[in-house]
Amino acid sequence: MSTSIDLNADLGESFGVYRYGADEELIPLVSSVNIACGWHGGDPTTIRKAAALARKNGVAIGAHPGYPDLMGFGRRYMALSPAEVTDSLLIQIGGLDGLCRAEDTCISYVKPHGALYNAAAKDAGLAEAISKAILLYNPGLMLLCPAGSAMEECARAMGVRVAGEFFADRAYRDDGSLVPRTEKNAVLSDPEEIVPRVLSAVKNGTVITESGKLLPVSFDSVCLHGDNPKAVQLAVAISKALRACGVLIKAFAKTGYEK
Amino acid sequence: MSTSIDLNADLGESFGVYRYGADEELIPLVSSVNIACGWHGGDPTTIRKAAALARKNGVAIGAHPGYPDLMGFGRRYMALSPAEVTDSLLIQIGGLDGLCRAEDTCISYVKPHGALYNAAAKDAGLAEAISKAILLYNPGLMLLCPAGSAMEECARAMGVRVAGEFFADRAYRDDGSLVPRTEKNAVLSDPEEIVPRVLSAVKNGTVITESGKLLPVSFDSVCLHGDNPKAVQLAVAISKALRACGVLIKAFAKTGYEK
Amino acid sequence: MSTSIDLNADLGESFGVYRYGADEELIPLVSSVNIACGWHGGDPTTIRKAAALARKNGVAIGAHPGYPDLMGFGRRYMALSPAEVTDSLLIQIGGLDGLCRAEDTCISYVKPHGALYNAAAKDAGLAEAISKAILLYNPGLMLLCPAGSAMEECARAMGVRVAGEFFADRAYRDDGSLVPRTEKNAVLSDPEEIVPRVLSAVKNGTVITESGKLLPVSFDSVCLHGDNPKAVQLAVAISKALRACGVLIKAFAKTGYEK
Amino acid sequence: MSTSIDLNADLGESFGVYRYGADEELIPLVSSVNIACGWHGGDPTTIRKAAALARKNGVAIGAHPGYPDLMGFGRRYMALSPAEVTDSLLIQIGGLDGLCRAEDTCISYVKPHGALYNAAAKDAGLAEAISKAILLYNPGLMLLCPAGSAMEECARAMGVRVAGEFFADRAYRDDGSLVPRTEKNAVLSDPEEIVPRVLSAVKNGTVITESGKLLPVSFDSVCLHGDNPKAVQLAVAISKALRACGVLIKAFAKTGYEK
Repeated sequence: MSTSIDLNADLGESFGVYRYGADEELIPLVSSVNIACGWHGGDPTTIRKAAALARKNGVAIGAHPGYPDLMGFGRRYMALSPAEVTDSLLIQIGGLDGLCRAEDTCISYVKPHGALYNAAAKDAGLAEAISKAILLYNPGLMLLCPAGSAMEECARAMGVRVAGEFFADRAYRDDGSLVPRTEKNAVLSDPEEIVPRVLSAVKNGTVITESGKLLPVSFDSVCLHGDNPKAVQLAVAISKALRACGVLIKAFAKTGYEK
Repeated sequence: MSTSIDLNADLGESFGVYRYGADEELIPLVSSVNIACGWHGGDPTTIRKAAALARKNGVAIGAHPGYPDLMGFGRRYMALSPAEVTDSLLIQIGGLDGLCRAEDTCISYVKPHGALYNAAAKDAGLAEAISKAILLYNPGLMLLCPAGSAMEECARAMGVRVAGEFFADRAYRDDGSLVPRTEKNAVLSDPEEIVPRVLSAVKNGTVITESGKLLPVSFDSVCLHGDNPKAVQLAVAISKALRACGVLIKAFAKTGYEK
Repeated sequence: MSTSIDLNADLGESFGVYRYGADEELIPLVSSVNIACGWHGGDPTTIRKAAALARKNGVAIGAHPGYPDLMGFGRRYMALSPAEVTDSLLIQIGGLDGLCRAEDTCISYVKPHGALYNAAAKDAGLAEAISKAILLYNPGLMLLCPAGSAMEECARAMGVRVAGEFFADRAYRDDGSLVPRTEKNAVLSDPEEIVPRVLSAVKNGTVITESGKLLPVSFDSVCLHGDNPKAVQLAVAISKALRACGVLIKAFAKTGYEK
Repeated sequence: MSTSIDLNADLGESFGVYRYGADEELIPLVSSVNIACGWHGGDPTTIRKAAALARKNGVAIGAHPGYPDLMGFGRRYMALSPAEVTDSLLIQIGGLDGLCRAEDTCISYVKPHGALYNAAAKDAGLAEAISKAILLYNPGLMLLCPAGSAMEECARAMGVRVAGEFFADRAYRDDGSLVPRTEKNAVLSDPEEIVPRVLSAVKNGTVITESGKLLPVSFDSVCLHGDNPKAVQLAVAISKALRACGVLIKAFAKTGYEK
């Protein structure tokens, strides 16, 4: 019996002369890429190059829309109304898709970025606003969100196809939620700890919580980070270990114009 | 024998609390609207409302992309490379189209805005960059540009379907070019002069140049402005006079999903 | 015995082609103007004109810094850290002061704008961040904030000179706080009701709360709005009524280089 | 007899999560730093850190204002009017100075950035606009510009004190102008060639032109770049060689509040 899982990473977040992330290093490791749409990062030329890279490497493309806050890289909460969120997503998703067309490919899913992702994970009004944007733009698109979150539930109830995400480098609570970043031990950094943890989650569907319990987890994708050299090394280690264990790295959504 | 012509106007250029233009007053006068894409004007909610207004009124929608210069409203030349222009148009056209989808409509043509329009009218490299964006995004889209310009010629040579534009309130030279705005009498303002001028251009295909010659003119659309109360009055007068003369106001491109 | 009070209004919030507010109509009514600094509104040329207008009319100038959110006009809460708020205020205050210098005048106080004003009224960390910016930039500057707010208390404790503000068109609770905008009757609109209310507050130091109690109020300035024709009319009525009652309209801070 | 010269470098051009330049590596090499003002690069926190670094290292601070084009890093020409340039400089210079105050220091000169620098070097209208901003903000500030340029001449004629700049890595023509970047051999890259060239320019006041002539050159500062690892190495080599030859590295303007 073979197991398969999706690995996803952010792409196309550079802006003008400013380089960010490790697009070239991450692309061979993953099966899906979340491409910035210009609001929290990504200029048109950078974004188009990311789309070309995705197509060349045969990985699925997700739109990665965020708050209009380049200075804060979309990581600062902004009190946009649900209607503003819907419209903001429509213009960002469409803009990315326009650049994808030029590279003869298209987007397959949406993953909100940064503070918008975090806010919508817990706020049904925002989750609904995001789901609306997807249904209005293309009901065939999937939503990538935290596995087991309110966002997942809300989107599913609205008829959006959902993929859940597992966080390799985050501690979990007994109720399945993440330990908040404000708490100590919220973020894991030791590859010796993280790699077996991901393997167990993928192969056995379980993760050890901060209290030491064995928690069942169900998800479709593992998020890899590439915003610093250590993160890239960790991404390489996770990807390598999964492949070595015979886990197939495979997109949860279709790849480009694939039927 | 009946004559028909397209009337076009800019729409959706408000931004947040800032109101600009006269979307509601202009829409009943025209058959095509050039909707801002967020770079020189237009926020997502404003743009979506403009798309809804266009659909409700059965007029054709053109993308109206500009330079990334909100402070200058896209009216200041910026030295973007041709490749940057192509990518900038792709993201802007796609973004507008994303909002159009939410209103169950789509764009049918592209009209560059402001300084980009003026620069591309004379610069083959920019005209080519714009044409490339159209062909990459959707070869079915038309380009609306100055009738008889280098942009028109270049686009046509690349296989882009082109519509030419007549300027109701601008003086023409004997060679068919516009009198530059830096010269006196470049811009006409008297409706008593402008209305008959437009009628003659539409019905007879001729315009009196600044030297007094009768110049043959060939075009598909007349541009109406609405950025001040006098401009709206003039637009009303032109539209009314054309209809009164039995001229059919009809889009040069298809309207929304029309076949 | 004569009474005096300051009237303040926002100025310089237009941006490029976008007109906002009623700078020319408001300036003769007030003794202090809060000039935008470019982040939520105001381009350099607009701001400089506002500074010139203030100098010509002999009114005090306050910096009116906001969140970096032109699309939301600084009215949407953004989760900036206190350190980011301090630095954001320093660059905005300095920028405005640079344009004031060109008009041979200077700023005398700071009034945060929109969502930043509202957030800092209740959040001691933000109030402290704002106070720090003032002390670092020029300890001679005053802070204009809601009378009786946590921001007022915090600033005063840090050694910032403070002026409190009365809201002519807002309902008050028995504890002196404003009725939140989310509640019915939070905002008053009838001049017949508002004008006597302001007179009573200024002359007697009392206001009727929503429950009908007589609440003592202590403040240094009354805020007038000018963002729509009705608001301007109300501002005119309030200003006129105060002058007719012999109240002197006088800035709470110094005016330009006045000693 | 000892010779002295200023070495200058750009600082504070990072933006949010985006790192740019080598502030820490360059600061010990130079006597003057041109700090970004937020329009082409630099967020408030980055800029303030750069000001603190400058103060700690005892180097002079220059304002480095640019076009409002973060996406193009201020390197794309924009057709701002002279009046717009003056006002844009006032707000940028003032903003930087506001952050300098928080670090108990101040700016001593202005060096326009990128495309604005290049445009003003040849355009008297822009040079005049820049000079006006300096005179309006603080006539004690100096202007750092290309030695022997029209900008230098224009500023001097208006009463602005000027410092001229030598380009270590650019080829010169017989008339003292730079070989345009569009031509081959415009930019030098071999440290073995560049270092002796700078030494000769500083010690002997001469440079070999592209045609092989010995051209007298007169300047007050040498610009060092740090936007890539090779540029930093070259900067180190130039600085080291000058010091080894007994050349004193000394700011052309005063340093902070120095009298």
